[in-house]
Amino acid sequence: MCPSPDIEDSKRGYVIPIGGADKYTDNQQVLTRLCELCGDREGRIAILMVAEHQSEIVELYQSSLKRCGATRVDGFSIVNREEGNQDELLESISAYDGIIITGGNPLMVSTTLGGTAIAKLIRRMNADGVHIAGTVGGAALMSEHMIAAGEAGAIPRQNGVTLAPGLGLTNNYIIDHNFRQRDRLGRLLTALSYNPFVTGIGLDENTAAFIADDGEMEVIGSGAITVIDPGNLQYSSMGSACSGDPISLYGLQLHILTHGARYHPITGAALNVGRYM
Amino acid sequence: MCPSPDIEDSKRGYVIPIGGADKYTDNQQVLTRLCELCGDREGRIAILMVAEHQSEIVELYQSSLKRCGATRVDGFSIVNREEGNQDELLESISAYDGIIITGGNPLMVSTTLGGTAIAKLIRRMNADGVHIAGTVGGAALMSEHMIAAGEAGAIPRQNGVTLAPGLGLTNNYIIDHNFRQRDRLGRLLTALSYNPFVTGIGLDENTAAFIADDGEMEVIGSGAITVIDPGNLQYSSMGSACSGDPISLYGLQLHILTHGARYHPITGAALNVGRYM
Repeated sequence: MCPSPDIEDSKRGYVIPIGGADKYTDNQQVLTRLCELCGDREGRIAILMVAEHQSEIVELYQSSLKRCGATRVDGFSIVNREEGNQDELLESISAYDGIIITGGNPLMVSTTLGGTAIAKLIRRMNADGVHIAGTVGGAALMSEHMIAAGEAGAIPRQNGVTLAPGLGLTNNYIIDHNFRQRDRLGRLLTALSYNPFVTGIGLDENTAAFIADDGEMEVIGSGAITVIDPGNLQYSSMGSACSGDPISLYGLQLHILTHGARYHPITGAALNVGRYM
Repeated sequence: MCPSPDIEDSKRGYVIPIGGADKYTDNQQVLTRLCELCGDREGRIAILMVAEHQSEIVELYQSSLKRCGATRVDGFSIVNREEGNQDELLESISAYDGIIITGGNPLMVSTTLGGTAIAKLIRRMNADGVHIAGTVGGAALMSEHMIAAGEAGAIPRQNGVTLAPGLGLTNNYIIDHNFRQRDRLGRLLTALSYNPFVTGIGLDENTAAFIADDGEMEVIGSGAITVIDPGNLQYSSMGSACSGDPISLYGLQLHILTHGARYHPITGAALNVGRYM
């Protein structure tokens, strides 16, 4: 799914995948920037827990985000698909200026949220200027093609990744999270090799990509974002490999970007090759 | 990837996944309809063999298509990514009114074609009114989320399907081919359960979906198309299942459509629930 169509006179909100974190308090740079952006409206942020409900998550976010300038922080949970279609929840959520989607397993998040009224609402709210962040499973969900699972390790392998349709808030990037902490280069390369038309980004913990309406990404946080651009890929052995085989890939471009760096994919159907600060 | 943006004053061409066939001559209904559509322009059809080159394929298509009214039928092959970026090929292909993409293994097709200049050209030509058909791997490639591989059998299973990004000529459907001949209901259900926002279609051999610019699909051919609409899915156990486990899915809608029947997904972000003749 590509992003929801433009809304006249509205500037699309930021899409903000976060690479996960052990402690929410370590994520101050990311949360501060999110609060600054939401402060351009009324600074209200919703924490949307999908397929989980942990009140301590909300409390941690409430204290952190309020220190960073949020005017209001409330928690909501969606444990099953029925809850994702309730009018009361839809009305509540539509009053916020930013949403953080939390959830561990990407497939738990996508199977609970996919195709529900709340999923459609979030897509429309983003087109209407609301900033949508997601951490771990919520980060994976942001993209059109979502990394749902895969093997650890640096080498791409046939069948080394499970892709699933995501929420499609961005179709410029395939996103992976907890990236260097869990040694995920191989599975991101595998995902890109299936169809080398999109840029891959691997987000370290406590690090987020702030993706603007034109696709430009800014790195915020204490770790790095690994960018892999397959736009000039000359050869891939993926099509002829057997399950589990290591894959040859010739001609990838690699950037490691840290706090404040930006990356801009070319706009258009195939979004590759960027400006690199 | 979603379809290439609209071109002013152009009506988008049909997208025509074909479910495969043992003999091209058994596909007369499909080829006749394709020739009728291309005849609205000058009736010129290109056979684009991706990751394969078999002169007998071209000869079979030439004799069949010319009997059906095509004015000109030529074969082209793209064996590697470099060939997909050659100016001469791009210029040649751009002169046709219809293209049939052939290729067996979907991942061979997507890794050879994905992100190349010819892939971008085909997307733009379709937006500009050229009809794009594909058989087997070329049929899978039509969709945004492509079924690249999977297990045979009727039961959906965790990890029972490999998805990869396709060419994105349609984002209304996830497409499977050789459907009832190779017992593929389970893998199509698995693909839909990952994120139940899109309609699944399983194409029998010698059967094609003629997908119009508004998403409406017409069934042409001697077999059937199995349509699975997960728009009202109440529950899926996919998120919590282990690899290989059978998956529970409650509330799917199923249609079996034969020659002349139509299916229309609702336009909008989540394309489900159709008119059913």
